[in-house]
Amino acid sequence: MGINMNKSAILHIPQSQYAYPNSENSMTIRLRAEADSLTDCILYIGDRACSQSPVQFSPLPMKVVARDELFEYYEAVFEVPFNRICYYFRLESGEEWTYYYADRFFRELPDIILEGSLIEGRSEYYQYPYILRNEIPDVPEWFKNTIVYNIFPDSFATGKEALTVQEKQIPLDNGICSRALLGGTIRGITENVEYVKELGFNCIYLNPIFTAGEYHKYDLLDYYHTDPCLGSDEDFKELVETVHKNGMHIIIDGVFNHCSWYFFAFEDVVRNGENSKYKDWFYNLTYPVIRPEGNEAPNYACFAYEKKMPKLNTLNKEVQEYFTEVCRYWIREYKVDGWRLDVANEVSRDFWRAFRKAAKEENPQAVLIGEVWENAESWLKGDAFDSTMNYDFRKYCREYFASRKMDAFSFAGAVSTMMLRYPANISLGQLNLLDSHDVPRFLSLCRGDMRRWKLAFIFLMLFPGVPSLFYGDEKKVEGITEREYRSAMPWQSSDGEFEGFVKKILSIRKEYICAASGYEVLQADKGSGLYSFIRTGDKGRILVCLNAKEGEEKAKVPGRRTALSEQGVIDREESHVRISACGFGIYVID
Amino acid sequence: MGINMNKSAILHIPQSQYAYPNSENSMTIRLRAEADSLTDCILYIGDRACSQSPVQFSPLPMKVVARDELFEYYEAVFEVPFNRICYYFRLESGEEWTYYYADRFFRELPDIILEGSLIEGRSEYYQYPYILRNEIPDVPEWFKNTIVYNIFPDSFATGKEALTVQEKQIPLDNGICSRALLGGTIRGITENVEYVKELGFNCIYLNPIFTAGEYHKYDLLDYYHTDPCLGSDEDFKELVETVHKNGMHIIIDGVFNHCSWYFFAFEDVVRNGENSKYKDWFYNLTYPVIRPEGNEAPNYACFAYEKKMPKLNTLNKEVQEYFTEVCRYWIREYKVDGWRLDVANEVSRDFWRAFRKAAKEENPQAVLIGEVWENAESWLKGDAFDSTMNYDFRKYCREYFASRKMDAFSFAGAVSTMMLRYPANISLGQLNLLDSHDVPRFLSLCRGDMRRWKLAFIFLMLFPGVPSLFYGDEKKVEGITEREYRSAMPWQSSDGEFEGFVKKILSIRKEYICAASGYEVLQADKGSGLYSFIRTGDKGRILVCLNAKEGEEKAKVPGRRTALSEQGVIDREESHVRISACGFGIYVID
Repeated sequence: MGINMNKSAILHIPQSQYAYPNSENSMTIRLRAEADSLTDCILYIGDRACSQSPVQFSPLPMKVVARDELFEYYEAVFEVPFNRICYYFRLESGEEWTYYYADRFFRELPDIILEGSLIEGRSEYYQYPYILRNEIPDVPEWFKNTIVYNIFPDSFATGKEALTVQEKQIPLDNGICSRALLGGTIRGITENVEYVKELGFNCIYLNPIFTAGEYHKYDLLDYYHTDPCLGSDEDFKELVETVHKNGMHIIIDGVFNHCSWYFFAFEDVVRNGENSKYKDWFYNLTYPVIRPEGNEAPNYACFAYEKKMPKLNTLNKEVQEYFTEVCRYWIREYKVDGWRLDVANEVSRDFWRAFRKAAKEENPQAVLIGEVWENAESWLKGDAFDSTMNYDFRKYCREYFASRKMDAFSFAGAVSTMMLRYPANISLGQLNLLDSHDVPRFLSLCRGDMRRWKLAFIFLMLFPGVPSLFYGDEKKVEGITEREYRSAMPWQSSDGEFEGFVKKILSIRKEYICAASGYEVLQADKGSGLYSFIRTGDKGRILVCLNAKEGEEKAKVPGRRTALSEQGVIDREESHVRISACGFGIYVID
Repeated sequence: MGINMNKSAILHIPQSQYAYPNSENSMTIRLRAEADSLTDCILYIGDRACSQSPVQFSPLPMKVVARDELFEYYEAVFEVPFNRICYYFRLESGEEWTYYYADRFFRELPDIILEGSLIEGRSEYYQYPYILRNEIPDVPEWFKNTIVYNIFPDSFATGKEALTVQEKQIPLDNGICSRALLGGTIRGITENVEYVKELGFNCIYLNPIFTAGEYHKYDLLDYYHTDPCLGSDEDFKELVETVHKNGMHIIIDGVFNHCSWYFFAFEDVVRNGENSKYKDWFYNLTYPVIRPEGNEAPNYACFAYEKKMPKLNTLNKEVQEYFTEVCRYWIREYKVDGWRLDVANEVSRDFWRAFRKAAKEENPQAVLIGEVWENAESWLKGDAFDSTMNYDFRKYCREYFASRKMDAFSFAGAVSTMMLRYPANISLGQLNLLDSHDVPRFLSLCRGDMRRWKLAFIFLMLFPGVPSLFYGDEKKVEGITEREYRSAMPWQSSDGEFEGFVKKILSIRKEYICAASGYEVLQADKGSGLYSFIRTGDKGRILVCLNAKEGEEKAKVPGRRTALSEQGVIDREESHVRISACGFGIYVID
């Protein structure tokens, strides 16, 4: 019983993902401890406003919900009949025990008697001050049950399952040109909504479609119109209507960190210098503002050091007003269902607060997805985004399925603790992805090995969160450089077996899994390639076994099984199956 | 060299008090490690937008700036020539070493070569996305150099150094009475501004003064007028002018979490029930809304379970507008310098965002101090308060100076790490206090032992932060129950020696210490009662030695000394002094 508690590993952060309400009457509280260091962890909760003195506490058992190399994560999800909570922990390690509150370890509670009077220490415990009904972490309900297909418009289609590649250049009013590289159009997308739907997706996320110079459309010239190379505003209206008619949603890409150096406001600054009424729309200007040639450094802040994309001063109230009106316009007039927000973490928080208010006023169900590659906790507090693009999901998949740097134990630890980064409802709304317009295709990370890609795809679709697939992944598109991974949709390529696989997995997700489904790691041993997890929902339990090793693994199957999809399963016993290298099995179990 | 790194103790939280800008060109980055577990800790910083690939990093040494029982806190404060930062750590423990980024330990950096292409991992390091100039943590400059005298108006004065105690009851328009217990007035305060100034304070913080029922004035009836028991609006205007004429500041108390059950809006709800246009001003109503008698539970949310103080629905935009206008009014019309905000952590964050915007629009230098007893990190992010009432300061002082539960080592650890809870500038603006209108007098915690009170007072005044003294502490007021600690200011009591001591310490603070002065623990050994620290400013180095033990302690004095104030110093050598039980020495050292 001589376990060492390792106090320095204990972590609890009040008013964070470690302590948050799930509803007006329930909370989740978590505590991190060193792996295998505690024999028990008990949470005591009390009503911090109770009229009795001292506060009466009730004990609640906490249980381990995730573990990784270093830590175990304890959690209690519980009902509370009051909305002002104080709490402390009792940690046990064999004979050793301690209370834990106020980030300190104690052997006693803070109440003291002084000259016969009880001096209460109720303010010294951890506090959740008040569960306010607008501060309960959540994302729009529809979004949690969404499966996203991400389209890069220039590369996708010009007609039904077809892309006639055509480089284009269309002059705009101000003498600038809008360019296209492959020539995909909005009407092309509209003609393939059915294709996307038939694969099993129910949401389309479009990379930028507003008027811009480059083919990628991230250098914006006009936030109120679609790009002429892509099509007309009417085309877009028709696309949205088609998407909605098919019971699907559509999300567009908003670029508010920067604009094109030919955007009207910047043009005005170049012309009028310090006299421009737009001079405070940009950041760190020195005058005269010029569009530098060659290698000359710009005298204004840019996106990265890209002089053609001056940084907008999103601290400026006028800028906030201009772009929140853009936000409102597309939600109100075109009925888009949400925004993916480019370079979101370089934009002022105040800007996003105003933007969020505007979006939710137009449509409380509109979803906001920030481009934040790192841990996005500070952006998911209810005043900025609902969701972020989860590149860490991709990173862990790369290390487990593609490069095999991780074993099953590390992978399970990484993805399970990733879910604990945010309140549960927020984690369920993260946009999980294997690739996007900004990174090499996942199939290339797998060095073209489709078996590995399939494992990752199964994981993407059956793990908690909102999966997002980049167009063409379902047609085995590879690519390491930007040109490659944004290459033309290979409509002509067709592989019935593979398409069948994609549809099958999506149909499993749709039939058996919803946002509320439980997630539990079943098997993920050190050194092993076999990672299996169970999702539990209304339709029963789904067991997903993935073998990422170049060799056989034995997968436990608890209970009677019905196979939904299998590959490389070579031996079936009552309590387990043997899965060959890079194979998988997906089962309904009772 | 076989030191154990204890990876599970390592903590770094991006975009928090562990990584924040000090200006547009400088940052502080911190890392926590187990005490004595690292032999070196090096920070590598790079420009996350740099056009070179891979990103070039520069190493920066980190040094330990605080330590406690469990941890050491490493810090680097550095200039950055770019505003988008990525960084990682290299941790060394003897022969053992590791990189640390993305909350994981690695032996390699994330860049990889894939089919001859460099796939950069720059997004995988820790990130500070962009130093934006409105997101640099700070508090109004004047406030950092403030010494606050906190007055509970009913208890303070009716004339110059005098309080004629008189219970009062003044009927208001609506038939309700405003009550006074001791009868202090605003004019009484005005007549003693000079007294407060002569003690050495330069700011007055007043508990509530608006029209209310009870003597404490926390049950508000009218946010636009002073309470008739305390005096007229004109009286208050005169007070503010007097304060300002004396070069001092004045902060008032704002109660926006709740109001009186006779507040006009609640009155309307009681009268008109569901038809009241104010029904959304309150929280969790059921109809008909009645003012319950006896022990009946109210059918609306309250402050605690106090039925006479219905909780305001601060989520409601109309409520936000009404009270932000109150905020503006007193800043604009009466020129108050700031607000202390009651029960701040039970009010909606959106309310505070609106309130802060309003306050800063009226006066960018207005200060906002939230009543948050616990770690207030989430409230000090730039969208709510500048400062909070630092009750943890009191708690640690209680445990070290009063109850002696802590030794010098623990105390130094507690207060040093308390400073690391927030970005440095924010810590310098915390309202440190020994007592307030809500807690027993600190002298009572010391069981009347003035020696101990003096040590704590020296610490309050000479430690970083904004000290706040509750009226009467300078006249040895004691008290454990509410009535006692809010008792009448004992103007008649006079003790020249003691008053001299108070003035002396304040004069030392004023002469030698400012917000920018460095703070460094010199001596704080385990088991010892001797805690000494050095503040370094323009006027040189001030050494403060405090002996909280009931026995002699030896205090190191590095360099030649000039005594500023001493008590119980019994032996003076070149390199140290001996200090008897509960004595102290304050020195200028070279």
